[in-house]
Amino acid sequence: MSLIVAIENWTPDQWIERFRRLAPDLEVIDAREPFDPEAVRFAAVWKPKPGLLARLPNLQAIFNLGAGVDALLGDPTLPDVPVVRIVDPDLTARMTEWVVMNVLAQHRRMDHHRASQARAVWVPIDQPAAHAVTVGLMGLGVLGKDAAEVLRRLGFDLVGWSRSKHGLPGVTTYAGTAELPAFLARTDILVVLLPATPDTHGLLDRALFRQLRGAAHIGGPVIVNAGRGALQVEADILAALDAGELAHAVLDVFEVEPLPVTSPLWAHPKVTITPHCAADSDAEALAHRIVSGIATLKRGEALDPALVVDRTRGY
Amino acid sequence: MSLIVAIENWTPDQWIERFRRLAPDLEVIDAREPFDPEAVRFAAVWKPKPGLLARLPNLQAIFNLGAGVDALLGDPTLPDVPVVRIVDPDLTARMTEWVVMNVLAQHRRMDHHRASQARAVWVPIDQPAAHAVTVGLMGLGVLGKDAAEVLRRLGFDLVGWSRSKHGLPGVTTYAGTAELPAFLARTDILVVLLPATPDTHGLLDRALFRQLRGAAHIGGPVIVNAGRGALQVEADILAALDAGELAHAVLDVFEVEPLPVTSPLWAHPKVTITPHCAADSDAEALAHRIVSGIATLKRGEALDPALVVDRTRGY
Repeated sequence: MSLIVAIENWTPDQWIERFRRLAPDLEVIDAREPFDPEAVRFAAVWKPKPGLLARLPNLQAIFNLGAGVDALLGDPTLPDVPVVRIVDPDLTARMTEWVVMNVLAQHRRMDHHRASQARAVWVPIDQPAAHAVTVGLMGLGVLGKDAAEVLRRLGFDLVGWSRSKHGLPGVTTYAGTAELPAFLARTDILVVLLPATPDTHGLLDRALFRQLRGAAHIGGPVIVNAGRGALQVEADILAALDAGELAHAVLDVFEVEPLPVTSPLWAHPKVTITPHCAADSDAEALAHRIVSGIATLKRGEALDPALVVDRTRGY
Repeated sequence: MSLIVAIENWTPDQWIERFRRLAPDLEVIDAREPFDPEAVRFAAVWKPKPGLLARLPNLQAIFNLGAGVDALLGDPTLPDVPVVRIVDPDLTARMTEWVVMNVLAQHRRMDHHRASQARAVWVPIDQPAAHAVTVGLMGLGVLGKDAAEVLRRLGFDLVGWSRSKHGLPGVTTYAGTAELPAFLARTDILVVLLPATPDTHGLLDRALFRQLRGAAHIGGPVIVNAGRGALQVEADILAALDAGELAHAVLDVFEVEPLPVTSPLWAHPKVTITPHCAADSDAEALAHRIVSGIATLKRGEALDPALVVDRTRGY
């Protein structure tokens, strides 16, 4: 009964230490060292080397250490065992913090106030109420629903869009490609919380930006992307900002991460960058949940179906 | 039956136009022109010239056009008629937007992210959840209660302080001078929404800052003042920032407004300034409420006692 820890991009040492501490009865294997593939029943992974998981004949479940499963599902050799997603209430709360902060900072013109402060000038501006601004949420899953709740409480007008129809109290919702133009035409600030799938790849392009409404006090439409970098066409974001078709872009995710030092996004005055930190999950809490999932499987019980990734949908 | 409009600091023209439009049967007088003092029954004022209101023998009520009544009550000749305060739901919502935005921006270290962006470097940081941060609210009136509700929903730990004891669901509350040290000792981010009264004058001084707790990820205690400039000792804020006793100050109000160009607050890297705009009220909505208050008095009915300023308390 072994758990293999296979992590690329980050160092796996802290995860190995956590699992050893939280589950002393479990043999924890470091994928960077030699190991017996037959002994491995469980895998805790983040972007593991393609092919690695296919070499484990007794694998029962894969626990993904990040919110996105696109990298994992992109491995054509991925074995047919349950892939367990993170649904971390803490992660949801952090995403809501980040979304609400950035929507408010745009609505309340903090860029203007910072520029005034830098020049030591006192320049009050006409400030509409939140209900004068429509926030359009793309992605109405756990994250989108939670952000919507707080944005509504703050008084923003809300519309929502998702692949399939979702009802959301107090939010006019749109679904699918056919209803996307109607959604965009009502949106002043676009908040993107979609997963990366073949359908959403490159969705945030110039043609889409041109369909946004935008609020006068902000100077036009704003996009706020905390979904996935693969959704956005960065050359189009820059072109739309420079053409005045977008007033601002707040980006936590990028086509290539870390964002290369050569990217013109860094220095653009109408771009706000955070380093893919909108919703880091609490590692300790996540390790607890994984250890408890392994215990469920060891008892011969099934995992909560809501936690298992649907491979046909891609999330 | 006349309404006099007496406004210093701003131009009164828009207010006069609004009242004439909303109440065509009311004679609206501009205090800058000659008028018959005996004809005036109502006054809509913002920091009127001391002594002006005392010259109106038939005055029935004074409607204050801003949230603070400290300037008005500071006039020793103020006649003994009801002073009507603004309680504007829109104003409350705007204040909550501003408070929530600034608490989140500190908690989520937006200064760090902006500095990283300016250097084109990708520097993720360890980000605790909101429940690891205690926001201390000074002032638990309409504004404090509303901000508390949203901050709680976002997961922050909350404590509250006010002159007299207020119960607030989910918030540990403290009252009066005796309980102030216990409140400060638990506070990481201090949000000040108190009115300016003789009791609160200069309250935010270095001795108070030294009692704050502060959160490690933010680098120490933070103060967020949207109450009144008279509450703060600006020399002490600067000294405490430079001594590392405060990590940051977010200020919407100042000892002198507009903040003089010579103030060292403008250029201080640990100070965020907004030009007394945290909660501008919607002028149109406010004018409606004043016209409706005048109609109530004309019918011989009493005003809602919650809207009338208690002069012994000072708000």
